[in-house]
Amino acid sequence: MSLHAVILAGGRGTRFWPASREKTPKQFLKIGGEESLLRMTARRLLPLSSADRLWIITNEAHIDIAAAHVPEIARARIVGEPVGRNTAPAIALAACLALRGDENAVILVAPADHWIADADAFGATVATAAAFAMTHDALVTFGIQPASPETGYGYIEAGEEVAPGVRRVVRFTEKPDRSTAEGFLAGGRHFWNSGIFVWRARVLRDELAKHAPAMIAACESIARAADFDAALRAGYAALPSISIDYALLERSDRVFVVPSRFTWSDVGSWDALAALLPQDEQGNVVEGEALLLDAKGCFVRATSGRLAAVVGVEDLLVLDTPDAILICPKSRAQDVKRIVDALESTGHRGLL
Amino acid sequence: MSLHAVILAGGRGTRFWPASREKTPKQFLKIGGEESLLRMTARRLLPLSSADRLWIITNEAHIDIAAAHVPEIARARIVGEPVGRNTAPAIALAACLALRGDENAVILVAPADHWIADADAFGATVATAAAFAMTHDALVTFGIQPASPETGYGYIEAGEEVAPGVRRVVRFTEKPDRSTAEGFLAGGRHFWNSGIFVWRARVLRDELAKHAPAMIAACESIARAADFDAALRAGYAALPSISIDYALLERSDRVFVVPSRFTWSDVGSWDALAALLPQDEQGNVVEGEALLLDAKGCFVRATSGRLAAVVGVEDLLVLDTPDAILICPKSRAQDVKRIVDALESTGHRGLL
Repeated sequence: MSLHAVILAGGRGTRFWPASREKTPKQFLKIGGEESLLRMTARRLLPLSSADRLWIITNEAHIDIAAAHVPEIARARIVGEPVGRNTAPAIALAACLALRGDENAVILVAPADHWIADADAFGATVATAAAFAMTHDALVTFGIQPASPETGYGYIEAGEEVAPGVRRVVRFTEKPDRSTAEGFLAGGRHFWNSGIFVWRARVLRDELAKHAPAMIAACESIARAADFDAALRAGYAALPSISIDYALLERSDRVFVVPSRFTWSDVGSWDALAALLPQDEQGNVVEGEALLLDAKGCFVRATSGRLAAVVGVEDLLVLDTPDAILICPKSRAQDVKRIVDALESTGHRGLL
Repeated sequence: MSLHAVILAGGRGTRFWPASREKTPKQFLKIGGEESLLRMTARRLLPLSSADRLWIITNEAHIDIAAAHVPEIARARIVGEPVGRNTAPAIALAACLALRGDENAVILVAPADHWIADADAFGATVATAAAFAMTHDALVTFGIQPASPETGYGYIEAGEEVAPGVRRVVRFTEKPDRSTAEGFLAGGRHFWNSGIFVWRARVLRDELAKHAPAMIAACESIARAADFDAALRAGYAALPSISIDYALLERSDRVFVVPSRFTWSDVGSWDALAALLPQDEQGNVVEGEALLLDAKGCFVRATSGRLAAVVGVEDLLVLDTPDAILICPKSRAQDVKRIVDALESTGHRGLL
């Protein structure tokens, strides 16, 4: 099996400030491993695809850094969005690009900034999903067994099994309230929507032609233009900013889910990252030079060369960089983006 | 009135790490004002004394920095202790030095690292104390009206008034337990021992001759030596390490107390310092470049040029320096010295 693959690397990742900045968003950071999340994603996908079938869609400002992180692929395979337009336009454009050279292209779509523990289990899930997508002209989503009643995720309700390891999708529910999420968890029929998908490019195009005809027409026009870069720059901003879930998956009757067995995290916050990393006996995660006394459950990241001394605190994030430090309880990790907003409004452009 | 004055500047001040270091202990830091604590102390004392009657006793490693902070006085008036020996030897030696040129010398003794708000009230207290010391051959201590049942201070129990503003001392109690301290506070007869004293040098010498004869003899020998520096270096380490309270004041029957009206702090910790500084509406004290969101009662000192972002925490110390940061609850401010001990035992000599 040699799939086409698209890595979606357009996110801002402001929840990882002060490590993430406009010039180096989350997907380019070495968090959760020795390599960047983008690099780890590419290393996971390249064996399932190949360097001449892999695309990266990123902000045009990040083409150079993406190329540095994934030197295996040709520069022309890194598509720079002039502006972010959520996932649907990026995925649609990638499908059109793949179709230029391969009318039978089957595409694996994966976000650049997720963390997956087991590459073999991931590969097995991809094989199941791709086989079903090819044989049934299906849009296949990867469902993650929920571990907690998260209210920030999208949930997929799975129906009957239609092939080994593949189930029909009953409905999508985006960001449920707490009690709904608890019901999903208890019921055992719901999966987190991982944002990882497999489908034939042709099927995606045809389904979008039904549900988002203007968008797919614009993407085909850009993909077929004699001067692709100019067409991209001229046309992309006019596309709607919309997720593939909302634009298509919640509307199409060709959507299926493969419940996945690999360990997954969207690494959505410093708190979520801490949960992935090795802890000491007091539940602390420590990177860099730090001295902890009577600290419990903290995540101390002191990688700027300075020592962080942390005394008598619990469940605190201490994040040190050369020009900024962040102190924040783990329970407030989602509020890091408020800091970024505040920096913007108080004229601290240099720290964004 | 022109007094002799001695500034005791030999402390280590490890509770102010990471700002205080071996090379720049607390008394040389600009905390609590625009100038160092030593400089502010010298500026308080010089109008009551004069540049040719003021002595500074400090560690010999800090002679240069002390001279830089108090350029008004001659270098020879800065006495460098080869090793710290607590307050009694330093005070005894200073008395012997003053007596070399002035057998009637009256000496004001003051720690270098205290904070006093009102110089006029301080001067008035000194006048009362010095007048009584001169007329009654008394050892006069400055008592501070206790504001809380501190267990880390020494307390002076005051007896009857023997002159306007001067009371007999009944007894000293060093570091009482909590309930004892609460009783002292409720009773209204106890004062904190400020470590500020006035006496005739001759009276101090004579009283020490009764209660610590070997020590005062050794100090006289050093003070009268033809080569003072050599005698100091050869003889000082052999002196006992003992406080003036324990060596003399708790034993002599010539001790009196002047209850003082000036606002005083020994600035014993970051927490105590925060209490002296202007707070915002949420009780935060902020120095340097910081961004606080939903933070209450914090002391954020970000004076290394980096931004400190502090979210959703209460009563936390966040202290940033170019090579180390400290995160510690205010309630644990006394434990900062444990960090210094831990740095020493883990080989972080460069951060001490």
